[in-house]
Amino acid sequence: KTNGARLWDSLMEMAKIGPGVAGGNNRQTLTDEDSEGRHLFQTWCEDAGCIMGVDEIGNMFARREGTDPDALPVYVGSHLDTQPTGGKYDGVLGVLGGLEIIRTMNDLGIKTKHPIVVTNWTNEEGTRFAPAMLASGVFAGKHDLEWARDRRDADGKRFGDELERIGWKGPEKVGDRKMHAFFELHIEQGPILEAEGRDIGVVTHGQGLRWIECTVTGKESHTGSTPMHMRKNAGRGLALITELVHEIAMKNQPNAVGAIGHIDVYPNSRNVIPGKVVFTVDMRTHLLDKLNAMVDELMERAPAVCADIGVEFSAEIVGQFDPPAFDEGCVGAIRDAAERLGYSHMDIVSGAGHDACWINDLYPTAMVMCPCVDGLSHHEAEEISQEWATAGADVLLHAVLETAEI
Amino acid sequence: KTNGARLWDSLMEMAKIGPGVAGGNNRQTLTDEDSEGRHLFQTWCEDAGCIMGVDEIGNMFARREGTDPDALPVYVGSHLDTQPTGGKYDGVLGVLGGLEIIRTMNDLGIKTKHPIVVTNWTNEEGTRFAPAMLASGVFAGKHDLEWARDRRDADGKRFGDELERIGWKGPEKVGDRKMHAFFELHIEQGPILEAEGRDIGVVTHGQGLRWIECTVTGKESHTGSTPMHMRKNAGRGLALITELVHEIAMKNQPNAVGAIGHIDVYPNSRNVIPGKVVFTVDMRTHLLDKLNAMVDELMERAPAVCADIGVEFSAEIVGQFDPPAFDEGCVGAIRDAAERLGYSHMDIVSGAGHDACWINDLYPTAMVMCPCVDGLSHHEAEEISQEWATAGADVLLHAVLETAEI
Ligand SMILES: NC(=O)NCCC(=O)O
Ligand SMILES: NC(=O)NCCC(=O)O
Repeated sequence: KTNGARLWDSLMEMAKIGPGVAGGNNRQTLTDEDSEGRHLFQTWCEDAGCIMGVDEIGNMFARREGTDPDALPVYVGSHLDTQPTGGKYDGVLGVLGGLEIIRTMNDLGIKTKHPIVVTNWTNEEGTRFAPAMLASGVFAGKHDLEWARDRRDADGKRFGDELERIGWKGPEKVGDRKMHAFFELHIEQGPILEAEGRDIGVVTHGQGLRWIECTVTGKESHTGSTPMHMRKNAGRGLALITELVHEIAMKNQPNAVGAIGHIDVYPNSRNVIPGKVVFTVDMRTHLLDKLNAMVDELMERAPAVCADIGVEFSAEIVGQFDPPAFDEGCVGAIRDAAERLGYSHMDIVSGAGHDACWINDLYPTAMVMCPCVDGLSHHEAEEISQEWATAGADVLLHAVLETAEI
Repeated sequence: KTNGARLWDSLMEMAKIGPGVAGGNNRQTLTDEDSEGRHLFQTWCEDAGCIMGVDEIGNMFARREGTDPDALPVYVGSHLDTQPTGGKYDGVLGVLGGLEIIRTMNDLGIKTKHPIVVTNWTNEEGTRFAPAMLASGVFAGKHDLEWARDRRDADGKRFGDELERIGWKGPEKVGDRKMHAFFELHIEQGPILEAEGRDIGVVTHGQGLRWIECTVTGKESHTGSTPMHMRKNAGRGLALITELVHEIAMKNQPNAVGAIGHIDVYPNSRNVIPGKVVFTVDMRTHLLDKLNAMVDELMERAPAVCADIGVEFSAEIVGQFDPPAFDEGCVGAIRDAAERLGYSHMDIVSGAGHDACWINDLYPTAMVMCPCVDGLSHHEAEEISQEWATAGADVLLHAVLETAEI
């Protein structure tokens, strides 16, 4: 079993970097805080005897040697970046849980045939630079490296420039590494495990996602002196599409979601009718056909909804992945480990996207989840118990040991 | 008559300071560009033989002496600050039109019994620091000076600190000056004069305004893994209130308006359900009872609309003025001047708020308006013709000469 107290200490230590305003974290990707978190992780990995590799998009790979020089490594990991008002566990648990299983193997003098590599994937959250899971997507060949380097944040800063600025552009070609398997430990970010009273979620599938960046164009004019019938109010377009997205999600129940989290209003002045609103619709479900039908309905109805009030609608997909089905062998290794360790468990579908979703397209992949309080995530009050974290790391350890062969 | 070509040149010269991105201006209050515009205006005034005074809130007063040392001055003016994506004429025409009538009097060797003072009021637009007409409001005793100095912009910068930073905090006590009368020339910012084919609008009344800053509070959570029935989406509160404001304005037709121009979403991340949205409702009409009834309806219905979807509503008035009725004598002076000069004219109600609305509470006040193309204002494409500007300045000159006594 892993050392749960040590894992918890490391989680708390990492959480000191980029503290939020309400007990959580703001350690967004490619900020100074991200860099500081990476340095701490590197030190810990080197102290545990690992060799660190970094690729051109900043993905970090801490390697513990195996006994067979020809065997491909078993990878474990997740991400250290957070939401602007994020929690202490989303992503971090998977990275530090990976480190903890290496520390445990060191303690117990366990050698594996396959090397073990702990990864920290760059920009999983996708807040500062869309899309989410950007660097694992480049690694998996889903995105072009140059396209990724050209992503811009809200201030117009380039992803590639910011990566160099914080000093984490490495020499390795992205995607050059081959994997025997990949395991990701993550908090559930939803309410099911806690409600069902299970220690462990064995993730069999994930929801697919579409991020649709919409632009509603009206005409800026004076809020006081422009008569109602002469207005082209882009803010009303936002309002009507907010409700349209909600309606589409509701009529596709159960197991479908839709909302708008990002909204920029131009010029954003109290006495100017919004001339333009840019916002991103997030739609998800675990059935590909249903997901596509939801997006089609939005794309078909939104232009008419906007035309009705005299404004224009345009849209572009800025993030997407299809619903993943994880590798049966790896999923089985997780289920067996939970069983063997005596942890209560259930199969679940991941509501969120994860780096594992991209890696799954290339190599045998699976995920293990632990509960989080009230299903709350992407919130500074995100919380888990030390017991839940320990159970997740224990299951990860056993699934990895089985796959990496002692 | 005034020198229309010279007035136009000055307008174009001023527009070079703080250019916008689409032919208009971004010379927001208390920015470096605002300071630069003030320096240019000061130089022009001193070249025209005026003495400049500046008060503690940055209001500028360029005085041309009169022949009677005991006579109170006739004031003219408006504001040099602009919207973030504003036009070249909103406010500026009134300040530089005031300067032009002094230049014309100098050319023609006209002496007046009452001194003439051209003013530039600080922060008329209210975009960077709410409310609008802030400094004329302090001058008129509507706001406390310390309260005004404590207003903060979106970056948390204080009005008072920014005024000192740009070097325009003057020594004069705010509101110490007494006026014989105040005249403001302004573009209409609405479509009526152009549609009716009139050169001059004689402003008899104005709309009253309420700015209601609303906060909808939900709960931040993950857009993917939070089931629909567990969401508290503050963005939906914004959507429903956007439509509620529209509905209230429409059912109070004719001559009532309502919209939301300012919206801040927290944390504004694509995969976080908005936990909080702060936005400002702008409601106006020229009848006080109707205006209050509109606000009451919003305040009564909005909490229930929000409660229905599980979010909370709170609101605060951050800007307000009641519908002004201008001084009959001053209004008459403007109407007579237009008539005498042979300009077509009509009585109109100002759709926008103006510094004149506050000064009107203390001293005899009136406004003269000229048309603007398509009624468009608070937009970089705001446009007027040189002829319209000249007609406005001519009428201002004659009304002022009559009031200041030659
Ligand atoms: N796990 C997680 O929150 N990932 C971010 C991508 C997503 O929005 O699902
Ligand atoms: N004239 C003008 O646009 N003033 C700003 C105050 C208002 O919103 O009416």
